[in-house]
Amino acid sequence: MAIGVGILGGTGYGAGELLRLCALHPNIDVVSVTSREAGKICDAHPHLNGFYSDLFDTEVNVGALSSYDQAVIFSALPHGVSGQTIINLLEETDSDTFKVIDLSGDWRLKSLELHSEFYPKSPIAAELRKKFQYGLTELYRDEISSCSLLANPGCLATASALAAAPIGSLDPIGQIAVDAKTGSTGSGKEPKSTTHHPTRHGNFRGYKPLAHQHEPEFKQAIAPSYTNQLPPMSFLAQSLPIARGIFVSVHAQLENEITSQALIEHLEKFYSTSPFIRVLHELPEIGPVVGTNFCDISGAARGNQIIICAAIDNLGKGMASAAIQNMNLMFGLEETTGLMQPALGPC
Amino acid sequence: MAIGVGILGGTGYGAGELLRLCALHPNIDVVSVTSREAGKICDAHPHLNGFYSDLFDTEVNVGALSSYDQAVIFSALPHGVSGQTIINLLEETDSDTFKVIDLSGDWRLKSLELHSEFYPKSPIAAELRKKFQYGLTELYRDEISSCSLLANPGCLATASALAAAPIGSLDPIGQIAVDAKTGSTGSGKEPKSTTHHPTRHGNFRGYKPLAHQHEPEFKQAIAPSYTNQLPPMSFLAQSLPIARGIFVSVHAQLENEITSQALIEHLEKFYSTSPFIRVLHELPEIGPVVGTNFCDISGAARGNQIIICAAIDNLGKGMASAAIQNMNLMFGLEETTGLMQPALGPC
Amino acid sequence: MAIGVGILGGTGYGAGELLRLCALHPNIDVVSVTSREAGKICDAHPHLNGFYSDLFDTEVNVGALSSYDQAVIFSALPHGVSGQTIINLLEETDSDTFKVIDLSGDWRLKSLELHSEFYPKSPIAAELRKKFQYGLTELYRDEISSCSLLANPGCLATASALAAAPIGSLDPIGQIAVDAKTGSTGSGKEPKSTTHHPTRHGNFRGYKPLAHQHEPEFKQAIAPSYTNQLPPMSFLAQSLPIARGIFVSVHAQLENEITSQALIEHLEKFYSTSPFIRVLHELPEIGPVVGTNFCDISGAARGNQIIICAAIDNLGKGMASAAIQNMNLMFGLEETTGLMQPALGPC
Amino acid sequence: MAIGVGILGGTGYGAGELLRLCALHPNIDVVSVTSREAGKICDAHPHLNGFYSDLFDTEVNVGALSSYDQAVIFSALPHGVSGQTIINLLEETDSDTFKVIDLSGDWRLKSLELHSEFYPKSPIAAELRKKFQYGLTELYRDEISSCSLLANPGCLATASALAAAPIGSLDPIGQIAVDAKTGSTGSGKEPKSTTHHPTRHGNFRGYKPLAHQHEPEFKQAIAPSYTNQLPPMSFLAQSLPIARGIFVSVHAQLENEITSQALIEHLEKFYSTSPFIRVLHELPEIGPVVGTNFCDISGAARGNQIIICAAIDNLGKGMASAAIQNMNLMFGLEETTGLMQPALGPC
Repeated sequence: MAIGVGILGGTGYGAGELLRLCALHPNIDVVSVTSREAGKICDAHPHLNGFYSDLFDTEVNVGALSSYDQAVIFSALPHGVSGQTIINLLEETDSDTFKVIDLSGDWRLKSLELHSEFYPKSPIAAELRKKFQYGLTELYRDEISSCSLLANPGCLATASALAAAPIGSLDPIGQIAVDAKTGSTGSGKEPKSTTHHPTRHGNFRGYKPLAHQHEPEFKQAIAPSYTNQLPPMSFLAQSLPIARGIFVSVHAQLENEITSQALIEHLEKFYSTSPFIRVLHELPEIGPVVGTNFCDISGAARGNQIIICAAIDNLGKGMASAAIQNMNLMFGLEETTGLMQPALGPC
Repeated sequence: MAIGVGILGGTGYGAGELLRLCALHPNIDVVSVTSREAGKICDAHPHLNGFYSDLFDTEVNVGALSSYDQAVIFSALPHGVSGQTIINLLEETDSDTFKVIDLSGDWRLKSLELHSEFYPKSPIAAELRKKFQYGLTELYRDEISSCSLLANPGCLATASALAAAPIGSLDPIGQIAVDAKTGSTGSGKEPKSTTHHPTRHGNFRGYKPLAHQHEPEFKQAIAPSYTNQLPPMSFLAQSLPIARGIFVSVHAQLENEITSQALIEHLEKFYSTSPFIRVLHELPEIGPVVGTNFCDISGAARGNQIIICAAIDNLGKGMASAAIQNMNLMFGLEETTGLMQPALGPC
Repeated sequence: MAIGVGILGGTGYGAGELLRLCALHPNIDVVSVTSREAGKICDAHPHLNGFYSDLFDTEVNVGALSSYDQAVIFSALPHGVSGQTIINLLEETDSDTFKVIDLSGDWRLKSLELHSEFYPKSPIAAELRKKFQYGLTELYRDEISSCSLLANPGCLATASALAAAPIGSLDPIGQIAVDAKTGSTGSGKEPKSTTHHPTRHGNFRGYKPLAHQHEPEFKQAIAPSYTNQLPPMSFLAQSLPIARGIFVSVHAQLENEITSQALIEHLEKFYSTSPFIRVLHELPEIGPVVGTNFCDISGAARGNQIIICAAIDNLGKGMASAAIQNMNLMFGLEETTGLMQPALGPC
Repeated sequence: MAIGVGILGGTGYGAGELLRLCALHPNIDVVSVTSREAGKICDAHPHLNGFYSDLFDTEVNVGALSSYDQAVIFSALPHGVSGQTIINLLEETDSDTFKVIDLSGDWRLKSLELHSEFYPKSPIAAELRKKFQYGLTELYRDEISSCSLLANPGCLATASALAAAPIGSLDPIGQIAVDAKTGSTGSGKEPKSTTHHPTRHGNFRGYKPLAHQHEPEFKQAIAPSYTNQLPPMSFLAQSLPIARGIFVSVHAQLENEITSQALIEHLEKFYSTSPFIRVLHELPEIGPVVGTNFCDISGAARGNQIIICAAIDNLGKGMASAAIQNMNLMFGLEETTGLMQPALGPC
């Protein structure tokens, strides 16, 4: 099967990673990549030199996509712009021409109130919003398999949800602290002071304490995994002096005591059908997941206290490879198609 | 006043930083620096080239120290070795020849049980142990001013205690999560796999979850600051891909709601007499404390949830400059003497 | 075609990268991986978790290899050990059971004098030495295609030779300066002071000035590309604070003036049949070659002065992927088989 | 003696480093710091928090400066803006009110042709230009001591000149290759694509081959040190993935053979009266000079080939501390006043 692929917003890091993964995927034809900037795709992405010789389109080539029986548009546009562009495209086009996977935050939050608070510049589009399936594969695999509009999860939300979801059936008490750290590519390709090399190098800082937009997202994502009402969550985002990778540590207290071994077995069971979740016997690290769709996860316990840590690549499982994983399911392919490459090792 | 200074274990990072600070201190004469390795001091510390032309001594020159009215021995020896060396020195020497500041963990824990559990290779020396004052200046300033044997705090314990102590009077409920991240110099000068550049660079990992030796230390340190019994603490140590610096985030829930502004004012009040604690209005970062004795701290609140973050230099406020700060107090000098230099800025 | 592969010295970085690339190669069966250390392959290489479930062998399984019509042994053993191990294997085995690709430096230098000077612990084995083909593919493609014993090039030598070879037909005058910079994985997996994170991070240093073992190697490699006698070469190795990648700048003066455009066209022509050499119009950078077999190269001229710069991955084109590239040729496969993946982009 | 100091362009990295050093200098009163941006000095420089509580001025407070018997204005304005601002200030003010040290490139090149080529947006001001003394202290100490207008050297030019000047009396033959590598603070505080953390981290690239503005500058600086005519120079600038520091390697051939020891002795003699040049017996590294005014230098020889390497801090000896060193001489102070601090060690 050949899937025709269009990519909106082709110059950013998300698109660059999508294009890299498309080049490795056996069922994908990249048909059209748009950008406001003119020029060659590989000039915007020097690592793709030799793999994409085409120019950017100014608008996505719907005609070319419609020549495929199966087609999908990935949007890697910024929040706000993405939502409106997709609304316009859907209005202008036959509904079965292409499926949509939006990598922006524009369709993730179901609550209109939370959406308006955290994405004030994005369209609300309440009716269309209901049709977008939230795309954290490991928690919503069945729903994703049958959807045609998908809201791809945020990077910090993905790692936080994967680490915190398994706690839902362990009778947590009190608040759960979710302490998240991310690499600099998470802030995008546009140079800014917080990603200026002299200040990011050798540094570490926290930001948006108890106010980050990925907190309501991961809470929405994991709520169904919690036997009881979701407990209070304390969420902190922090900046790592690396380019790629997210590490989340989750601190919780349980109603009853548990051993580290029982906790790890619980994780193994929780993710037994998820090929990209590697449950480890020691705490994970970022290195072995860079460039991959893997989430490495483990935990430890003492009495009724537990810590669970998860590591992902923010551009991979936190963004582009997760989008491909979702695409695979949406088109009836094996979930792992085109995604089973190991990390580089030390890099 | 000239204070004669001896340094034990002169080749490691702690000694290197002590020597750097001694070169900037107006009241210090470095009299004797010991090492098992022969050679020049500045060959072991290339950054001190031009500042120390002497050779290492094999044993501390007590005779030279005793020619000073005021003298102190800093021990930067490894855990275990340090405690025994100090026991021997104190037995062999007149008790008022020199004061002692031990940078190792050998005298920090008061509980003999906890000490034996976390430092099984260190002497217990229960009687001598009682005479060692724990040296977290901001919490024990008065006791330090009158002591002559001092247990200098651990780096992660210092940052954790400074961040968590102010919560003690805010009626916390449930467990407190202390999430700590440290640079690679904290693991010492001896090359090992966890500080091997290829695996540390661009990486991040957790270690010793709920089992790190600095957890009982900071709990002991802050217990008196807690109005009620110390709540359960969840402690995680993590490795940053930087050389110097510690960042600790503390997540807690309070009995009552509080605003971010009220929380910051509480921190300002708590540390109003501490010249090296800089309470900020935004979350701190590691960069501006590298090479200094400062602890930058701030926090945020939402309802009854709070996050407090603190940043220090693990070799500075977490080790050598804290030792000088304590020395200043122990000899009646101004606490800030020789320590009021700004950080380098971007580096 | 299935090629049976044995790997000697399976715990190091070279073997880790070989194993990663073998997992992506359509014609390779990894049959036996040896190590002095017991344990699982993926425990030594956390990034291969999920890709190799086998244990290390203590000795290479020649019996299993001999069941393949086509087989090859890659040696990733240290210099000295590798040469002797291969001598022993060849003596014990039928000569057509397997081909050999040695990643160590033991067979690279043809001059017995230079070999003895730079590899004093390696066997000389003068007769066997003559049978080893030097494996810089772009300069010795035909010879490699017909050999069965191959000396895989050194990393700094590869980048230096690829940058300096094209100058040979441009009538250089005076000495040529080759200024090489390398990442920390080039020093291997064993922790040592020069790859200790605290001293490597944020640092840069030169080493072995005019005395590095890769200088005679690249001079031997490029001599045939020089119309006249090889001019004097000045070679400096330097340490970059990154994990992977080599950047070499070559400064030369020519008999006649040349333009930058003419120089770049000369490079394009020189490498017109080499699919892994990407000639750029601006100076290269390391990022886009990390994890790949590409060498990005470009240059500039002013009057009769030229600078040529080349970037490779020391573990890729400088080691393991070059070995696979050579293997492809030695077994009649397309040179690019299993190697045409793009770099990760920012990482 | 108290010297009144005004600083123009107070928000950049050069000004930040000047302010840090002024806080450590016993003879400096910082009287006025200007910036186009309103706000507190320490908000622009978080590492100076607690050391500068004043606001930026919109214009330099000449009145306050004139109340000092000795005063100096440092300009850390951008190229072009700086030259014109100084022209205006000098026209408006009594000539003996203050001396001027311009850290920009606006007054460095004596050749009007070269100046116009490399600084096309800067004023030529041919007459005033003659009065500006080029400020590479080690080569022009006497002239600097008696000047009142000083052009502070460029960072790459400083390291290149200090490494290449000693070759002038060694009878070099053929071209000299100067291969320079710099940290990211050298590109300034304004975020841009070449200093964007995701692309700078873990990367290395060359730029402006044979076309960098610091090449004519260092050639002008060292010409008088050359017994014969200056030979052709090949200059390459390259970007290191660190924040601070420059490393320059110089490759040359001599008329006659020399030993490494004789070369090092030559360097020691050449810099025997220069307190900030540390001649080492092994190649230097960047770490031990970060944050200092030191230049560490060494070399090696083989036959008639030599390599000399020099390491400096681009913001220190390459900029702000060199400016203070020059100021010391211009006001009759000891050259080392306020500058003799060791580097941090690992950082």
